[in-house]
Amino acid sequence: MPLKHPKAKEFAEWYIELVEKAELMDYSPIQGCMTIRPRAYGIWEKYQDIINARMKSDSVQNAYFPMFIPESFLKKEAEHFEGFAPEVAWVTHGGNEELAEKLALRPTSETIMYHMFAKWIQSHRDLPLKVNQWCNVIRWDTKTLKPFLRTREFLWQEGHTAHSTEKEAEEMVLRALSWYREACEQYLAIPVMLGKKSKGETFPGAKYTTTVETLMPDGKALQAGTSHLLGQSFAKMFNVTFKDQNEKDQFAWQTSWGTSTRLLGAMFMLHSDDKGLVLPPKVAPLHVVIVPIAKKDDESAMALQAAERVKKSLEEQGLHVHIDNRKERTPGYKFNDWELKGVPLRMEIGFKELSERSVTVARRDTGEKDVIPEDKLALKTVAILDAIQKNLLEKARQFMNANTAPAKNFGQLKKTLEDMRGFVVSGWCGDPRCEQAIKEDTGATIRLIPFNDEPSGVCVMCDRDSKHTAYFARAY
Amino acid sequence: MPLKHPKAKEFAEWYIELVEKAELMDYSPIQGCMTIRPRAYGIWEKYQDIINARMKSDSVQNAYFPMFIPESFLKKEAEHFEGFAPEVAWVTHGGNEELAEKLALRPTSETIMYHMFAKWIQSHRDLPLKVNQWCNVIRWDTKTLKPFLRTREFLWQEGHTAHSTEKEAEEMVLRALSWYREACEQYLAIPVMLGKKSKGETFPGAKYTTTVETLMPDGKALQAGTSHLLGQSFAKMFNVTFKDQNEKDQFAWQTSWGTSTRLLGAMFMLHSDDKGLVLPPKVAPLHVVIVPIAKKDDESAMALQAAERVKKSLEEQGLHVHIDNRKERTPGYKFNDWELKGVPLRMEIGFKELSERSVTVARRDTGEKDVIPEDKLALKTVAILDAIQKNLLEKARQFMNANTAPAKNFGQLKKTLEDMRGFVVSGWCGDPRCEQAIKEDTGATIRLIPFNDEPSGVCVMCDRDSKHTAYFARAY
Repeated sequence: MPLKHPKAKEFAEWYIELVEKAELMDYSPIQGCMTIRPRAYGIWEKYQDIINARMKSDSVQNAYFPMFIPESFLKKEAEHFEGFAPEVAWVTHGGNEELAEKLALRPTSETIMYHMFAKWIQSHRDLPLKVNQWCNVIRWDTKTLKPFLRTREFLWQEGHTAHSTEKEAEEMVLRALSWYREACEQYLAIPVMLGKKSKGETFPGAKYTTTVETLMPDGKALQAGTSHLLGQSFAKMFNVTFKDQNEKDQFAWQTSWGTSTRLLGAMFMLHSDDKGLVLPPKVAPLHVVIVPIAKKDDESAMALQAAERVKKSLEEQGLHVHIDNRKERTPGYKFNDWELKGVPLRMEIGFKELSERSVTVARRDTGEKDVIPEDKLALKTVAILDAIQKNLLEKARQFMNANTAPAKNFGQLKKTLEDMRGFVVSGWCGDPRCEQAIKEDTGATIRLIPFNDEPSGVCVMCDRDSKHTAYFARAY
Repeated sequence: MPLKHPKAKEFAEWYIELVEKAELMDYSPIQGCMTIRPRAYGIWEKYQDIINARMKSDSVQNAYFPMFIPESFLKKEAEHFEGFAPEVAWVTHGGNEELAEKLALRPTSETIMYHMFAKWIQSHRDLPLKVNQWCNVIRWDTKTLKPFLRTREFLWQEGHTAHSTEKEAEEMVLRALSWYREACEQYLAIPVMLGKKSKGETFPGAKYTTTVETLMPDGKALQAGTSHLLGQSFAKMFNVTFKDQNEKDQFAWQTSWGTSTRLLGAMFMLHSDDKGLVLPPKVAPLHVVIVPIAKKDDESAMALQAAERVKKSLEEQGLHVHIDNRKERTPGYKFNDWELKGVPLRMEIGFKELSERSVTVARRDTGEKDVIPEDKLALKTVAILDAIQKNLLEKARQFMNANTAPAKNFGQLKKTLEDMRGFVVSGWCGDPRCEQAIKEDTGATIRLIPFNDEPSGVCVMCDRDSKHTAYFARAY
């Protein structure tokens, strides 16, 4: 039952086969939309817990804003409208009546939220205002659609804040980014690089955009989350003002930041293999599956009894454990099935284990098997799960490092992109025309400019002195 | 700062003033849509925890299905389409392109979910399948709109299950209903009555609908949640079949059940008073606010210190506590403000309390004040919160009982509806024409028929022998 398409050779087909067969998603009759099946949605719930904990400790409050946005709102911030209009889905009829003004389904909620912020903020005492919503958003994308990574409807969280100073807003931008880094690296085992976007890749309407970027196994970069300093541009359009301590009217400084269900796709793509899904234990809905193996009836009862005993001792460690006691399936079928579905550890209890009072433990990530005495099993299991978590991050980080290389000139950049793929690090003069020319020729965009940016020789495109170090890559 | 409109005399205006001033909601530029502000959304998150715990212990899994539904899907089940079509919002354009088939925004998700169920269910071993989603739904309602109780977009959970036997499906219907009863009564302090709907009030496409109903202070009934036995009608339309143990194809037996953010509105409406919001402690985001009161600077430091000490001891009991130390506000302003916002307990610490090492505790529900020695405060506080929780439910239950009365004939029914409002209990022959005639004349509908239904004298409308006991009321 391993997947038909090998990851190394038929990456795109492998990914589609993976997310379907591991029951992570299913298609919708509407092109570009998908169903998030329970096995994947359970991981999204864990991600929500991780981000909610961080937001709440920073006094960010969850709320819910309408999904309908009047066209006139979207148009208020010109850059913003230009950026999103081509991807907006429009509601024109309610019941049997045509609407007076057509309504956008939110592609993002800056405009509707800041219309409210303007009413809620009066004084500097009302600041900072920090609000987040978990919701669905719609972007009628015409690029190639891919489950989790690019769909027309997806789930996300969008945090929106207003502050009395630019400094405080900038700190918020970086704080949100640090939450994303932590969630990616410590939980999803996705290593990331942090930096700023070029003007060309900045969120429409923002002063600047910061990003967490990672690398997929096919060498394409993936934007895992972004955090924007909006400055005062939306505040000016939506009149988000406050009386400062001298009773003078001031415009608020704003930020917004978001991550979406595409993170799940990135995680599936990064760690999984030809046998199926591989999940980091910290977000796996199920940590351990126990397969009792018996040839005779009396063995069967004993194996099941041992399995129940083991399950209980593991649950005391806070682990989620399932006993697969299906009569109609062979052990081999079960092994394949749980490997496909990404359970981090499989435990086998058969005649040998029963006689030794031990358990055979198989790691999903490396395939390694170990026989562990039952009395040491609970603590050992916790340690192995921890090792799996670290191993997945480490492997992915090594891959990202190994596929990040400098290029001194355009020929080198192009060749490196073709040979190795991954990130190519080069000098850039800062001219958007050079950025554009590289994109047109190679398909690569500037994924980020590191926070400790400095010039790096000449511009890889035009040979003028560089002003920045830029990370180029093709991207999802 | 109490509300301008008294609850007893200007109920409708009082409710609107309440939800606005207590910062529970705000309007949207789109008529009939609203923003759920953090103070209300935090309660919705608690409700999600309550229902999620019950669902998960019953192996119901959360998932997410597309919000776009093709018109052809909605049309498959004729009754279902007829029931929902007048309220559907339609998407006709994506980006700048007109869509080939217009898309409905889900008013409910039976059709899109069961299209998937048909793919996921093959064998009796795949049953029961139990899936729930938390999401937004759209009903382009033309009835009178009211914050939380009736809006064109709202949040809900919809559980959908498939079973191999009708008996198992019927048990599921009642189990979901029992979760709703528990959540309403034990957490939201909303007393409910359980029963079945008449055919005229049944969910479009269902075999029967069960309901939890409650009564609002203005005497109108409110449907707090419903749970439907769908039978096999959707299964037949969407081909949800399974091979039974004899390898014979069978149609699945299905259920669906839902509750929404209208529950929050019911809770606000039921318990609150002329001072503002009253919340049951079990779902209040904040349990206690401490107001340090001091006339001199040295008192102020001591009062704050005592407040911090009290806060810590209460937090050790798992309570959420806030110290209101705003310099620019008087104690009187703060008292009003927290009463408006519905914090169940206020604690005052001033000179008297400091000298006695005690705390003055004021109950939001009854206004009672008590001076409690600091060393007994933590346990006493838990007990008082418990008493508030019980008191709110009890008061509401007494109100519902006092406003539920029998009527033997139509004149009596009409008069009772006008005098007392509330539920009128009468015999009903079962003829939809009688049901319709009563509705047209009085505005009252059959809210429920109790599970232990039996004939009750003659039909209140036609004087023929009754077949049922029906609870009539005007409703939200």
